[in-house]
Amino acid sequence: MYEFDLIRRYFSPLSKVEEGALLLRDDAAVVAPKAGMDLVYTKDLMIADVHFFAEDDPKELAQKLLAVNVSDLSAMGALPRGYLLGLALPKGIKEWWIARFAEGLGDAIQCFGGALLGGDTTAHKNKVNALVLSLTAIGEVERGKVLKRSGARIGDDVYVTGTIGDAAVGLRLLEDSSLEEVLSLEESSYLKASYYLPVPRQAWGAALQGLATACVDVSDGLVADAGHIASASDVALEISVDAVPISRAVESVISVGLMHVEQVLTGGDDYELLFTAPVEVRSVIEKLAKSLDVFATRIGKVKSGEGVQLVRNGAIVELVNKGYQHSF
Amino acid sequence: MYEFDLIRRYFSPLSKVEEGALLLRDDAAVVAPKAGMDLVYTKDLMIADVHFFAEDDPKELAQKLLAVNVSDLSAMGALPRGYLLGLALPKGIKEWWIARFAEGLGDAIQCFGGALLGGDTTAHKNKVNALVLSLTAIGEVERGKVLKRSGARIGDDVYVTGTIGDAAVGLRLLEDSSLEEVLSLEESSYLKASYYLPVPRQAWGAALQGLATACVDVSDGLVADAGHIASASDVALEISVDAVPISRAVESVISVGLMHVEQVLTGGDDYELLFTAPVEVRSVIEKLAKSLDVFATRIGKVKSGEGVQLVRNGAIVELVNKGYQHSF
Repeated sequence: MYEFDLIRRYFSPLSKVEEGALLLRDDAAVVAPKAGMDLVYTKDLMIADVHFFAEDDPKELAQKLLAVNVSDLSAMGALPRGYLLGLALPKGIKEWWIARFAEGLGDAIQCFGGALLGGDTTAHKNKVNALVLSLTAIGEVERGKVLKRSGARIGDDVYVTGTIGDAAVGLRLLEDSSLEEVLSLEESSYLKASYYLPVPRQAWGAALQGLATACVDVSDGLVADAGHIASASDVALEISVDAVPISRAVESVISVGLMHVEQVLTGGDDYELLFTAPVEVRSVIEKLAKSLDVFATRIGKVKSGEGVQLVRNGAIVELVNKGYQHSF
Repeated sequence: MYEFDLIRRYFSPLSKVEEGALLLRDDAAVVAPKAGMDLVYTKDLMIADVHFFAEDDPKELAQKLLAVNVSDLSAMGALPRGYLLGLALPKGIKEWWIARFAEGLGDAIQCFGGALLGGDTTAHKNKVNALVLSLTAIGEVERGKVLKRSGARIGDDVYVTGTIGDAAVGLRLLEDSSLEEVLSLEESSYLKASYYLPVPRQAWGAALQGLATACVDVSDGLVADAGHIASASDVALEISVDAVPISRAVESVISVGLMHVEQVLTGGDDYELLFTAPVEVRSVIEKLAKSLDVFATRIGKVKSGEGVQLVRNGAIVELVNKGYQHSF
C-alpha cells in the first residue's frame, strides 16, 4: 500500500468541494479568501494512549479529531473552510483502518463543512510506535467579529452551553465498568458517546459574534478554561457550582458517591462553549438558548480580581486539582 | 515542565510579529488576508527514525522542518505568512531540547518570514515513542499567479535550480563514513549540511510567477518529482542525464564508483525547484539564473507521451528504483 494510492483512493474525494485543493495532487492547496472575512487557524494533536485507545474505531477517531478542532473555531466564532491532516501511522497498519478513518473524516466534513485541503501521511519505522493524528483547521469569520478570551468585563454574566461532565464520566465508564450498575443502558451509551463523539457548538459560536465579550471551548475542564478567560481578560470569574448544568446520567453517578462534583467541573473533553456577555443582552441569549440545537445556562458573574471562584450557598468551594495540563 | 509554561517561555515570542496570533493565548489565531492575494496551505511531518535521527540537534530539526514546508510554498510561488506547529514528544523530554528547538524555529522564521500562529504540544505516554514533528505552513501569492504542477506544455524547457544529489550523498556519508576518504573536509561538511539544512528556493519561487508553466520542489527525487509534473500535465519530460547539475563533491563520490549517478537522480531531499517554461522566456530565466542566490540549469524538454525519459548520448537510460514512496 503506497502513499500516493492511499491519497488517490481515500483522501482526494474529500477535497473535491474545494477546487483549490487541486485534488491533493500538488505541493500545496490554493484558497481564495472571501471578501470581508478574517481567517482563523487552529491545530490539535491526538495521540494513541494519551487522547484515545489504540484499538478505538478509526471512524470515531477521525470524527473526534475534526470535532475538537472545529470546536476551537467555534470558540472564536468561526465556521470551517478547510483542513490539513497529518497521520503518523504504525508500520504495517491495515488498509481497512485507513478506509474506515477516511469514512469518518468524510462524514465529519459533510457535517461540519469545509474540505480536506492537504496533509501528509507517513509510516513509523516500527509497529510499537504510537499513532499520532494531527489536524490544522482553517475557519472564516466576519472581519473584526472574532471572539477572543480577553474581552470579559466586570459585571458580565458567565454562561455555558449544554451539560458539563458527560465526557469525563464517559471516560471513567470505559475504564471502570462498575459505574454501569447505577446507570440505564441509554445513560451509559449517552455518556460514552459524549466522550467519543463530542459535538462542536458551531451554531452558538456563529450566533455569539457581537454578543459575547469572551469565549472559550471547554476542553481542559470547566474551571481551567474559565481560568483562561479570567487571566486573558484580567478579571475573576465567579461560578455557582449548583448552577452548572449536569445531565441526569452524571447526577446519578454523583448521587451514589461514585464520582464527586469536583471531578465533573475539572474533567475536560466537554467541548461546550463557556462565554461571558453583558447583562443587557441576557434576553437575546435566553432566546437563542430556546432556538438553537442546545441550551445555554447562566452560571456566574465576572468580578474584579483574578482566577476562578467556585461558590455554593455563598461560601467558596476549594478545589485540589484544577484541570488537565500536559506535563513533559 | 507544563505545556502553558513552555508556550509562554519558548513559543509565544515567535508569534509576536503577527498580532492576530494573540500571543498563542487563545483557541486559534486570526489572520486578515491581504487584498488581492491567494492563500496557499501545505503540511509536512517529520518522524524520528524515518526522516531524521532521534539524537539529531533539535535546532537543526526545527530549521529543516520549516525549510521543507517553505520549499512546498516556494514550489507554488508563494511566500510564508505563518506556521502551526504540532509536537508529539517522548515522555520525559528535557527542557534544553525544547529551548534549542525553539531557537532553531526562531532563526528559521527570521530567515524565511512569517510568524508562529499556533500549535499543539503533547507528551507521549512513554519514552520509547518516536518524536513526531508536524508543521502547517501558510503562504501568500498574488491572486491567480500560483504555480501548479499541471501547466507544462509540449515544447517547454525543463529546468532545475542548484545542484542535485548533495543531500542524498550527505545522508550516505552519515551512515557510511568510508565515503569520507575521497572527500575533503569542506566537501564532507557541505554534503552533510545539504542534508540537515536544505535551503528553500524562495527567490526563485517568487520570480517564476508568470514565467514557469509548471513547478515542483524536488523532495522525492528528481525523477519521481519530474514524474509528478508529467502526470499532472499529461505530457512526458525528457531529461538529459549529463545536463543535470552535480556538485564537485558528488562528482568525486561518483567518479570513484562509491555511488552511481542513478542514486543521485532518485535520492530525494534536494529541495531544489524543478520547473518548465516556454522557449520564449529562456533569456529571462538565464538572466534570473545570474542574479538570484543560486543558478538554474536547463536539463530537458517537455514532449508528448507520459512519464520521464532519461537520455544520454541519444539513448534512453533505464532506472530500477524511481524514487522514494512511503509504504505502510
